[in-house]
Amino acid sequence: MPRNYSNVLKGVKSGRISVGGALKILKDLPYKDLGFAKIDFHRGLRRGFPEVVFGKGKKPAQIIKIAKKIAGHDGTLLITRTDRKVYRRIKKLYPKARFDEKSGAIYYAKKKIQKKEGLVLIVTAGTADQAVAEEARITLELMGNPVEALYDVGVAGIHRILYKKKTLEKAKIIIVIAGMEGALASVVSGLVSKPVIAVPTSVGYGASFGGIAPLLTMMNSCSPGIAVVNIDNGFGAAYFASMINT
Amino acid sequence: MPRNYSNVLKGVKSGRISVGGALKILKDLPYKDLGFAKIDFHRGLRRGFPEVVFGKGKKPAQIIKIAKKIAGHDGTLLITRTDRKVYRRIKKLYPKARFDEKSGAIYYAKKKIQKKEGLVLIVTAGTADQAVAEEARITLELMGNPVEALYDVGVAGIHRILYKKKTLEKAKIIIVIAGMEGALASVVSGLVSKPVIAVPTSVGYGASFGGIAPLLTMMNSCSPGIAVVNIDNGFGAAYFASMINT
Amino acid sequence: MPRNYSNVLKGVKSGRISVGGALKILKDLPYKDLGFAKIDFHRGLRRGFPEVVFGKGKKPAQIIKIAKKIAGHDGTLLITRTDRKVYRRIKKLYPKARFDEKSGAIYYAKKKIQKKEGLVLIVTAGTADQAVAEEARITLELMGNPVEALYDVGVAGIHRILYKKKTLEKAKIIIVIAGMEGALASVVSGLVSKPVIAVPTSVGYGASFGGIAPLLTMMNSCSPGIAVVNIDNGFGAAYFASMINT
Amino acid sequence: MPRNYSNVLKGVKSGRISVGGALKILKDLPYKDLGFAKIDFHRGLRRGFPEVVFGKGKKPAQIIKIAKKIAGHDGTLLITRTDRKVYRRIKKLYPKARFDEKSGAIYYAKKKIQKKEGLVLIVTAGTADQAVAEEARITLELMGNPVEALYDVGVAGIHRILYKKKTLEKAKIIIVIAGMEGALASVVSGLVSKPVIAVPTSVGYGASFGGIAPLLTMMNSCSPGIAVVNIDNGFGAAYFASMINT
Amino acid sequence: MPRNYSNVLKGVKSGRISVGGALKILKDLPYKDLGFAKIDFHRGLRRGFPEVVFGKGKKPAQIIKIAKKIAGHDGTLLITRTDRKVYRRIKKLYPKARFDEKSGAIYYAKKKIQKKEGLVLIVTAGTADQAVAEEARITLELMGNPVEALYDVGVAGIHRILYKKKTLEKAKIIIVIAGMEGALASVVSGLVSKPVIAVPTSVGYGASFGGIAPLLTMMNSCSPGIAVVNIDNGFGAAYFASMINT
Amino acid sequence: MPRNYSNVLKGVKSGRISVGGALKILKDLPYKDLGFAKIDFHRGLRRGFPEVVFGKGKKPAQIIKIAKKIAGHDGTLLITRTDRKVYRRIKKLYPKARFDEKSGAIYYAKKKIQKKEGLVLIVTAGTADQAVAEEARITLELMGNPVEALYDVGVAGIHRILYKKKTLEKAKIIIVIAGMEGALASVVSGLVSKPVIAVPTSVGYGASFGGIAPLLTMMNSCSPGIAVVNIDNGFGAAYFASMINT
Amino acid sequence: MPRNYSNVLKGVKSGRISVGGALKILKDLPYKDLGFAKIDFHRGLRRGFPEVVFGKGKKPAQIIKIAKKIAGHDGTLLITRTDRKVYRRIKKLYPKARFDEKSGAIYYAKKKIQKKEGLVLIVTAGTADQAVAEEARITLELMGNPVEALYDVGVAGIHRILYKKKTLEKAKIIIVIAGMEGALASVVSGLVSKPVIAVPTSVGYGASFGGIAPLLTMMNSCSPGIAVVNIDNGFGAAYFASMINT
Amino acid sequence: MPRNYSNVLKGVKSGRISVGGALKILKDLPYKDLGFAKIDFHRGLRRGFPEVVFGKGKKPAQIIKIAKKIAGHDGTLLITRTDRKVYRRIKKLYPKARFDEKSGAIYYAKKKIQKKEGLVLIVTAGTADQAVAEEARITLELMGNPVEALYDVGVAGIHRILYKKKTLEKAKIIIVIAGMEGALASVVSGLVSKPVIAVPTSVGYGASFGGIAPLLTMMNSCSPGIAVVNIDNGFGAAYFASMINT
Repeated sequence: MPRNYSNVLKGVKSGRISVGGALKILKDLPYKDLGFAKIDFHRGLRRGFPEVVFGKGKKPAQIIKIAKKIAGHDGTLLITRTDRKVYRRIKKLYPKARFDEKSGAIYYAKKKIQKKEGLVLIVTAGTADQAVAEEARITLELMGNPVEALYDVGVAGIHRILYKKKTLEKAKIIIVIAGMEGALASVVSGLVSKPVIAVPTSVGYGASFGGIAPLLTMMNSCSPGIAVVNIDNGFGAAYFASMINT
Repeated sequence: MPRNYSNVLKGVKSGRISVGGALKILKDLPYKDLGFAKIDFHRGLRRGFPEVVFGKGKKPAQIIKIAKKIAGHDGTLLITRTDRKVYRRIKKLYPKARFDEKSGAIYYAKKKIQKKEGLVLIVTAGTADQAVAEEARITLELMGNPVEALYDVGVAGIHRILYKKKTLEKAKIIIVIAGMEGALASVVSGLVSKPVIAVPTSVGYGASFGGIAPLLTMMNSCSPGIAVVNIDNGFGAAYFASMINT
Repeated sequence: MPRNYSNVLKGVKSGRISVGGALKILKDLPYKDLGFAKIDFHRGLRRGFPEVVFGKGKKPAQIIKIAKKIAGHDGTLLITRTDRKVYRRIKKLYPKARFDEKSGAIYYAKKKIQKKEGLVLIVTAGTADQAVAEEARITLELMGNPVEALYDVGVAGIHRILYKKKTLEKAKIIIVIAGMEGALASVVSGLVSKPVIAVPTSVGYGASFGGIAPLLTMMNSCSPGIAVVNIDNGFGAAYFASMINT
Repeated sequence: MPRNYSNVLKGVKSGRISVGGALKILKDLPYKDLGFAKIDFHRGLRRGFPEVVFGKGKKPAQIIKIAKKIAGHDGTLLITRTDRKVYRRIKKLYPKARFDEKSGAIYYAKKKIQKKEGLVLIVTAGTADQAVAEEARITLELMGNPVEALYDVGVAGIHRILYKKKTLEKAKIIIVIAGMEGALASVVSGLVSKPVIAVPTSVGYGASFGGIAPLLTMMNSCSPGIAVVNIDNGFGAAYFASMINT
Repeated sequence: MPRNYSNVLKGVKSGRISVGGALKILKDLPYKDLGFAKIDFHRGLRRGFPEVVFGKGKKPAQIIKIAKKIAGHDGTLLITRTDRKVYRRIKKLYPKARFDEKSGAIYYAKKKIQKKEGLVLIVTAGTADQAVAEEARITLELMGNPVEALYDVGVAGIHRILYKKKTLEKAKIIIVIAGMEGALASVVSGLVSKPVIAVPTSVGYGASFGGIAPLLTMMNSCSPGIAVVNIDNGFGAAYFASMINT
Repeated sequence: MPRNYSNVLKGVKSGRISVGGALKILKDLPYKDLGFAKIDFHRGLRRGFPEVVFGKGKKPAQIIKIAKKIAGHDGTLLITRTDRKVYRRIKKLYPKARFDEKSGAIYYAKKKIQKKEGLVLIVTAGTADQAVAEEARITLELMGNPVEALYDVGVAGIHRILYKKKTLEKAKIIIVIAGMEGALASVVSGLVSKPVIAVPTSVGYGASFGGIAPLLTMMNSCSPGIAVVNIDNGFGAAYFASMINT
Repeated sequence: MPRNYSNVLKGVKSGRISVGGALKILKDLPYKDLGFAKIDFHRGLRRGFPEVVFGKGKKPAQIIKIAKKIAGHDGTLLITRTDRKVYRRIKKLYPKARFDEKSGAIYYAKKKIQKKEGLVLIVTAGTADQAVAEEARITLELMGNPVEALYDVGVAGIHRILYKKKTLEKAKIIIVIAGMEGALASVVSGLVSKPVIAVPTSVGYGASFGGIAPLLTMMNSCSPGIAVVNIDNGFGAAYFASMINT
Repeated sequence: MPRNYSNVLKGVKSGRISVGGALKILKDLPYKDLGFAKIDFHRGLRRGFPEVVFGKGKKPAQIIKIAKKIAGHDGTLLITRTDRKVYRRIKKLYPKARFDEKSGAIYYAKKKIQKKEGLVLIVTAGTADQAVAEEARITLELMGNPVEALYDVGVAGIHRILYKKKTLEKAKIIIVIAGMEGALASVVSGLVSKPVIAVPTSVGYGASFGGIAPLLTMMNSCSPGIAVVNIDNGFGAAYFASMINT
């Protein structure tokens, strides 16, 4: 069933395939097989955003290979959880590519990104949650979402978030990022009527068990209107936020 | 700071307070204090939907008292996780109230509910997940969302969900409800580009540990675009879905 | 080394032992041995409050036997986690004894209890936390503490607790009782500068795991000034509060 | 609502605002926003002790920036879980600052600290618990509490703690710090009638699971009068002790 | 290789097999096969005590069948975790059989049991641990061990165990049975130089997690000389004690 | 894409579709939609055995409806984890249907089952594991596998399994079913060179945690040649065994 | 009973023992005792494949010693989880030995391996699962199994596996290797009627808990026909696959 | 109550205190207070073996200080979990001291150790368990126990342990040390009628969870006569064995 990608394009060029028909075919087109990886070109069409490279556990050479295919195909590139060494090699290929030290994200967009309307607000409990926040911010911006951020407004000094109620009200969607006990998600959701995407972080020690404590807190929130993603998954929260930011 | 509710209304009536001014006051108005419970009238204004009564752990008399206040104030009532006994007493007060045996939900709307546009699709893995699905369906409908459902399309016979791709494409938001290993959420999210709200259920045995297995599955999904709510929390998933169904 | 209790009293009566000397002896005096139980009379002297009977797992006959020894010796009696059946039998022996249905506590004080000065405030997140709260309230009152309570002020409608800041400020010690995600302890501790004794409860479902979720939340609170007792341990929180209410 | 900090001070200087009035304003004044951190000046007023800097997970430059703001504002500084490198930079700014190698705490007080009356006793089970004990001791002293310590009196040689009963009796509040099985908290609470703040530590191996074993031991203690803080949280125990040391 | 049991006995009778030879054969002889169960007759010879019937999860008819084979073969019978209904049927077959309500144990010895010399002391923390203690006591006595017991001497009133040091010194082996936090095992082992067999019990609530808390406590004891058996396993502790009581 | 089932059959009848062609279509044919359930007819063709009904969590009426469709379609029926009540109703419909009390399985085969060649041996550690064993035995027989069983040969009397080495050697595949510590799987795999499918059971108490202990034992076996299925999943083990019994 | 190995061989040489007789003896012959290790020569005969050396936790010198004995005896060698350093030393002894960097496996076969017929297919979810896949591939090939592999076909882009249905159909046995949420095993088993051996991997982060998440997913799969091995145990899956590949 | 140690000795010397009297005093004498540590001299008298130094988490200087006091006082020294660096310093002080690389134990006995009669047998499952075994062996020998060892006889090649039944029979007490699934303890206890002290080890990977798997296996053993110590606790097993080796 899987057809050859270039053949489709040739068919369109020659008029043998209509644009509408080609689009239909493309929707079912598979992936680029690199042997060790199968790049899901499909995703760019299906989801409006290309496959994102999760850098952790991949060798630099593998990342570069995958990155070239994606950037060449889609003109947009996001590599998460990687390092400066990989960045140097990417930079040579795509001088416009940028790197965020805190989160380890490399990102690049060939063309100007079209902006959506709804504001996504990132709220963090503490300074140490910032790496996760940056991963979210970069993902959101690359996907065209206007972003604002409120850093270090955890519950210990609850007046800090209370004074920012107006900023909360302005947002269409709020991403709350918190480690330790993770109560901030409940508090934000209790203050304003916005969908809250909660990201537990591994920030903490002792009985926070690498993020289990805030994960359970967010999962059991007594305030409706909260949905949760994996521990430290700034990217996932941003991706979900962008999907519902229509 | 908290002011008396009826005084505000009197002020509006007498012209002493403008409608705009009253609305502002009402936004900050607190709750009805029943001693054992403080009803959050606020919520109806803040969130466009009144406080929902979580029936489990409350005595029938307490539920009735709270329900009367809410239904009287907002004209809409949702009690989850309760039973037929409570329903009989509610029915006498509000003959239009209905009861769903599977989920234990009582629901009532005085006036016709205004419909939203986006379709919310409920997908369940197995027959035994239906109680959770009904809780979600009732909540969604009460909040004005068009709802469709695909029951018993778990991964064991994966062609069942593959054949329903068109139904999946029709939806704006998809709620996936699954116990056992909970793989259905990943599969649905891998098939179509829609935000998936995943609800792990306690359906299963042995190493499903009352829902921990599907919870972890959904949390760790390799497919972006999934956010998770608590085990068996059909209400929470529906509430979140309704919030993002703008 | 253990000496006979009545001999000491006889010694005091006959003048053979001074009051000061007797007090010293009594401080080291052991317990009443009932075979299946060893009642710690010591405790009344050492701690100013007699041994409390934990009813769960004890047979009614055993409870009655122990209760008679304690009430006869100290004039004060507290049995927790028991039922109305035991109460009927206690009531015949001590008509002034009272019973709290919600928490299953039987309590009795022969003489008027001397009041302390500092106010202990009990704050609960939801209506279902009330059983634990009543166990705490009864213990506190029996130990002479002025008590006030704020029920059902959980974070879902956070304005409810914000409007009660004055009540919070009035207290010397605050006991926060919360199930589900247990964020209320952090919020209260973030609002006012009072020692907070946090009691996680088993109220909740799914990933609250019988109280593990709020336990971890309270343990990891980012706000200093919180110490935690066991799940549902209203008695323990009250006992600790009374000890520091000097 | 949040007003500008310097304006208030100018108002006091010019006589436009009375001292009492300014104090009221200051009580509601928010925080210093450094972008990556929001320093809670509020806390010094609200709690009588400034915000404490948790060093772990913050970059040296961030710590220095925050430390300067706090020390400059309050004249008191406590940084926990940091290292000698940060200390060298702090020392240049505040030559009176001191460093404790074991716990990694930097502390500094511009003026002589006013002493409270009640003695807080720190009791540790083993030599390896000392890092946590030092964090507690430094915090207590900085907050004006008289402190004594009994190190290495674990239950394995129980006569060591039995011989120290007099020291235990002298204390107003006891902090018990123990890893491995953590039984010492129960033993101390069973020996004397003092509030015990229990700190489980990650000292141990195998089935101590990084402190879960002593945490559960302390949580389930059969002796009333114990409240628990997070694993290794010497600071939290000391802070709570100081709050109840009135 | 497995030979027929009656053939061996016939061989001995006929003189074809010497007693010594028969004994050797018997040591290797297998079991009685009842289809649903294979009774390990072997064990009586190998271990000096016949197979013990664990009643839980077996049907009454099955228990009776197995019990008859064992009692008939060895003249000694122990059924643990069963009930009065089974007892009534056993009693008809073996009128000397006795039943312990608390632990659910049925026990019977045809002949007088030969006494060992070393004293085994059973120590329990609370009244509710008695069921486990009785299972241990019955097992010990049936296996010929002199037994004494100290009930309800938990750490909450630690002077109770301190005053009993002489009793502890008298014992050759000590079985410590404790739920809640289980600290008693460490305390007893810290007081006297005796091997301590520790039995965690499921007595407790909240964070005792059905016996995990005392299990971890006992496992991690800082006092050497403690070995642990399964939660509520009074039988196992007694069996082990009897094996080392040589 | 999904075509109508009866149309295919009509097509075959009329000669419009060849048998080979129809078979191909049928392989892709979906399921019978009962609303609350979608019966996977597909499975009978795809796997040579129809969908099995997991009775737990389904209402009797639902089970009957599903069972009728399956038995009518495939002539073979297996319902697991159900009860005698459901059986009575099934029996009226299919008088040849049989019921196993221990496992709660109802099974029925219209025609004589064709036998495979390889012997599958079921080995259980204790009498209480029999329910799981019967579920496995019924499944195996219904799928045409010759079955033998060795019950109650756990490691406590290890000579019982050692004497049965010949029986073990005879088998092609061995299913080992064990609760408590589950060591039997490792022992059997260490004795003979056969694939072992290990089923942990919830038989046990205390630290067996409902089957987690034997699950981990089997998972970590130092003997290669073991694969594990879910706790108590006799059906799953048998199904897998039948698949590899070619 | 254990006889000397060389004596047997001498006996065969001299004709004193027949080949058939020697084979029988060899089947019961024990192991080579190196003091720190007892090499199970037995296994080569019993299982048709020699003992495999698990390199982790063994010193290089120990590995070399063991390896020499095995390779010398059986002519086949597999060392898993070791490194290049050990390889260099092995290579000098057996120049034909090869090394796989990703999995850390050293492997060597003196003679050409005889091929089996059934195809074993290895399917991985992501690029990072490759190390485990290579361990499986090497083991399978060394044991004579034809192997094919499908890498990086995880559920996130589910069309990748759907397009490969024909490859799946071709296989006799499928090994599915997946980290994160591990849903791929259910999907593959839902697509085709083949026995699936599932290997959870430690690939992932946050709530994947080092492989617990995919382990539970695979254990609870709603699709029958799946059996599971330990986390990252590529070798164990391959060994089991080879055993059933008859 | 605690008296000065040297005064007692002076009293004996001067004849003021009889030897019997001094012994009594010494039995109650406390410990040497080094500030950071309180050495339990008591233990040598109470238990017949001095305090053992747990090296992990102590600084070299602290270990040396403690070691000098113990070795000087008792003439016997055991330091566990330390390294060669500490050994070099100890060696200068006590040239007869020895070091075991595998376990990290330093041991020294001034005088010849008096031998007990009963043999203690150490049995390990794999080569990697040897470090724990050496810790046990050294402790046993230092405490005067005859020791033998069977290394690497795990269940994977179960004939290895079966052939060693005679060695097992010879022992009075058996210490079984096993990681991975830990089944060896059950097997040994099922083979011979000896008390088994089981030591789970952290050897393994994946679902062995650092020793939880063998810990649970041993705890739940279906064979009576097993008691368990902490993960990797070779010292504790040996100490307990020595206590019961009377």
